[in-house]
Amino acid sequence: MKCRKCGGKAAINMRQHKLSLCREHYLEWLPEQTQRFIEKYRMFSPQARLLVAVSGGKDSLGLWDVLSRLGYQADGLYIGLGIDGGLAYSSESQRLAERFAAGRGLRLTVVDVAALEGATIPEAAARTQRGKDKPCSVCGLTKRHVMNRAALDGGYDVLVTGHNLDDEAAVLLGNTLTWATGYRARQGPVLEATHPGLVRKAKPFCRFYERETAAYALLRGIEYIYDECPHAVGAKSIYYKEVLNQMEAERPGLKLSFYLSFLEAKERGLIAAQSDPAAAGLHPCTTCGQPTSAPGQCAYCRTWERVRSQAVRTLEGGQPV
Amino acid sequence: MKCRKCGGKAAINMRQHKLSLCREHYLEWLPEQTQRFIEKYRMFSPQARLLVAVSGGKDSLGLWDVLSRLGYQADGLYIGLGIDGGLAYSSESQRLAERFAAGRGLRLTVVDVAALEGATIPEAAARTQRGKDKPCSVCGLTKRHVMNRAALDGGYDVLVTGHNLDDEAAVLLGNTLTWATGYRARQGPVLEATHPGLVRKAKPFCRFYERETAAYALLRGIEYIYDECPHAVGAKSIYYKEVLNQMEAERPGLKLSFYLSFLEAKERGLIAAQSDPAAAGLHPCTTCGQPTSAPGQCAYCRTWERVRSQAVRTLEGGQPV
Repeated sequence: MKCRKCGGKAAINMRQHKLSLCREHYLEWLPEQTQRFIEKYRMFSPQARLLVAVSGGKDSLGLWDVLSRLGYQADGLYIGLGIDGGLAYSSESQRLAERFAAGRGLRLTVVDVAALEGATIPEAAARTQRGKDKPCSVCGLTKRHVMNRAALDGGYDVLVTGHNLDDEAAVLLGNTLTWATGYRARQGPVLEATHPGLVRKAKPFCRFYERETAAYALLRGIEYIYDECPHAVGAKSIYYKEVLNQMEAERPGLKLSFYLSFLEAKERGLIAAQSDPAAAGLHPCTTCGQPTSAPGQCAYCRTWERVRSQAVRTLEGGQPV
Repeated sequence: MKCRKCGGKAAINMRQHKLSLCREHYLEWLPEQTQRFIEKYRMFSPQARLLVAVSGGKDSLGLWDVLSRLGYQADGLYIGLGIDGGLAYSSESQRLAERFAAGRGLRLTVVDVAALEGATIPEAAARTQRGKDKPCSVCGLTKRHVMNRAALDGGYDVLVTGHNLDDEAAVLLGNTLTWATGYRARQGPVLEATHPGLVRKAKPFCRFYERETAAYALLRGIEYIYDECPHAVGAKSIYYKEVLNQMEAERPGLKLSFYLSFLEAKERGLIAAQSDPAAAGLHPCTTCGQPTSAPGQCAYCRTWERVRSQAVRTLEGGQPV
């Protein structure tokens, strides 16, 4: 395989694009494509203040690297979830995120959930209904809340996440198999701020295959955490990714055309949005003030209040948490 | 495994329904369910004159058996396609269809495509662009045309086909992966006659898994053709069935919930129909008079005219067809 641009030895062959590139030209190509997607989907202007949600993985660190190289004002946000899973998952990913930022002189905000709310994610999950099977529900809820608040408090214009095509296609497949049309109607490269208290969100990597973002991080020499979150094992999203990978192996480009034809159908108004749960009237949470569709308190405040009350009850009962 | 109704030895265990039944109760259950679906989706009344499209396979013969037992006036239509494929596919399936009808005193109409149009399906495919890779396109076109004409000419109220859940879910998945929203909007247990020259269509088996219809035919002692059409090998629909079977193995009931949640979303108006190609203005074909959206001749007449002209040209050139 030869690089299409210079004829040198190819570092990556992208079957779905019928394109092979050497290391040097791949490291040029991916940022160029990212810039193209930012413009095509009107994600943000060159002047926008961006907050990049950074997990320590290849996607978010790769994205932060690319946005900085493209000249955007992009700060980072790391959320400490307190997940160990036998591999010091959170502390290791935090170390890598901090090292990345320090090495490039980038600004990283760290929010530690245990310091903020009095318990780690696994502790919270163990104390609530929401975490009966897995902590993923309370984790997702918490990350969404903290990211939104950090972006608003910091005066950022857009919250940027590293979701890649594999992530997006898996969510789309899951929502499609259950015809969760409301959620589907909101899926896309940009999630508009439909309410003053909600930050605008964008996913500049949404058209890159996971292997493309992984190749970028590797070829760029970014040190990132290889492990998936230990709680993600058996998650539906991973299962849907496997199904899509199988289909992709059989029909190269399927994942991309699945996602793009969805966006096109949505663009043409063919993906109905009637039942969008977020379209219901939002009002400020009585505790934190963030917009919520639930009456009174938002799900975040309600959940974490329950976590704290459970801690007290458990201590009173003298039982270990 | 025991039969839930009588405690006897179960002949089938349906994980997705959490239901095991013995032979006798299964042979009661499937027709009862069929009747329930006929009513639920308002397919046809007890007085309707039905034409069942019969291929000689388990689904269509099983369906004809069930409809007759339920007391419906159901005649059969067999279309001779002239497919051999090394296993005398068409002649064997015709023999089984005729034998089924004769044994039960049912009325079967046989339309032979070669007698009607001067060439078998494989011959036609070899002579046209439509059959360059596979004869499936010209075959589908021909069957739809012949079925519609036979139903209209015979004064039938509804054309009934044996599509099962696996068929429907595979088509749905295929249309979903490409977001072919127009086609999807028309998919369902009933296809209304949207135009005077089009017959109403219904699929009473659309909620049965393929293994359920196969079990019915086996337990009822119906002799049917086991082979798939030899041209179906490698077809996308078969591929999508495999993907769905894998997902079903992991999550029993997925196929059914995929299909039912789709129907529900459609019912609630969430599956947009704007781009339905059939919604475009129909007019009578200048040759056969059947409704078509193409200008002038319909695709059926155009294709078969080309097939015949190719035969003449080939003979003139002195080359074998």
